[in-house]
Amino acid sequence: MADYAKTKRTTLKRAHERGSYDRDTVHAILDEALNCHVAFIHDGAPAIIPTAHWRDGETFYIHGSSASRMIRALEGGAPACIEVTMTDGLVLARSGYHSSVNYRTVVIYATGRKITDEAEKLASLKAFMEKIAPGRWDELRAPNAQEMKATTVLAFELSEVSAKIRDGGVEDEPEDMNDPVWAGVVPVRRTFGTPEPDAQLRGDIGLPGYLKNYTGPG
Amino acid sequence: MADYAKTKRTTLKRAHERGSYDRDTVHAILDEALNCHVAFIHDGAPAIIPTAHWRDGETFYIHGSSASRMIRALEGGAPACIEVTMTDGLVLARSGYHSSVNYRTVVIYATGRKITDEAEKLASLKAFMEKIAPGRWDELRAPNAQEMKATTVLAFELSEVSAKIRDGGVEDEPEDMNDPVWAGVVPVRRTFGTPEPDAQLRGDIGLPGYLKNYTGPG
Repeated sequence: MADYAKTKRTTLKRAHERGSYDRDTVHAILDEALNCHVAFIHDGAPAIIPTAHWRDGETFYIHGSSASRMIRALEGGAPACIEVTMTDGLVLARSGYHSSVNYRTVVIYATGRKITDEAEKLASLKAFMEKIAPGRWDELRAPNAQEMKATTVLAFELSEVSAKIRDGGVEDEPEDMNDPVWAGVVPVRRTFGTPEPDAQLRGDIGLPGYLKNYTGPG
Repeated sequence: MADYAKTKRTTLKRAHERGSYDRDTVHAILDEALNCHVAFIHDGAPAIIPTAHWRDGETFYIHGSSASRMIRALEGGAPACIEVTMTDGLVLARSGYHSSVNYRTVVIYATGRKITDEAEKLASLKAFMEKIAPGRWDELRAPNAQEMKATTVLAFELSEVSAKIRDGGVEDEPEDMNDPVWAGVVPVRRTFGTPEPDAQLRGDIGLPGYLKNYTGPG
């Protein structure tokens, strides 16, 4: 498919070489990250909330308590700006000025749509669980009516979207190259520890396959 | 010191037990995280940018290119909402509804102040480097006038601030406890890989002490 079309506010003004409008690039960042950061305007002031997210095709999803301030604002049509970032490295250059961070960021401008169709809502919640733990959804009891009512799912179309990526090594001034200081990159990684079973877990239940050597989504 | 005073917008409406206004709790989250998420209003719409941050006492700092859209908006007095989140675990409950994430989040409402005093600005940039790599600042050449001019540092007073923390294990419905599904927590960690020296690093420069067994700030 064609890249996301640039708009005025998704066009990078500086460091253009770090920008990407490629769908696969954007999707990969969204799919690997566990959570996003949702900005919206509340009572005339900026507000921001971190929350889990997932994606299906060109639709981006978040969910939350139907009573939450963010959900109520966004289901009412307040425009959102949503950001997802993975931090990949500390770039220690030979000067403070050129020191940097390696990262992959996606920014989405969109207005949410509350999913009202129960089947669509259930399918989206399944897609969320499939992102985190493939196969687990079918092991769980189905959500009951009260739980479905207490949960709102919001869908955002991926249209006004851009990625920004900084990778690679240090980029120093030529005159700094002989400075007597270490320079390079310290990788930053998201890792997962050994799953910790609930103290009340039934004795006959072992670790499911989807949690063996778990490396997370994406 | 006393806790941060609650305001209408920092008072949690739901899950009150997860809220904290304790300064040490807030400081520890800010100090451990490498980056924050800054929301502001731009051309009447919400905007959000991830950026590195640091703290000194009750002052929170970000910096950026003096030409950046965010810096220009915020130095002009646009109110900001800043969020910092560390993700600590995937909480896999016996139902989708009670599945959750362990996290530590801080939200700050504040208006930025551009640091115009050169000595204050230099001290703040040193504090940033000290957060990431203690001792490294004194190994680097000083920033030159052009670099100082190209960099804007914004300070935000920590006053309207709250933390929200979810930790611990699964909290299931009593009637779900015997369900035949694994339940527990998968720890999520930020880790650092082996530092990767620049290909052009001087042969006589070894890994500095502050990067040996590096575990990051905080």
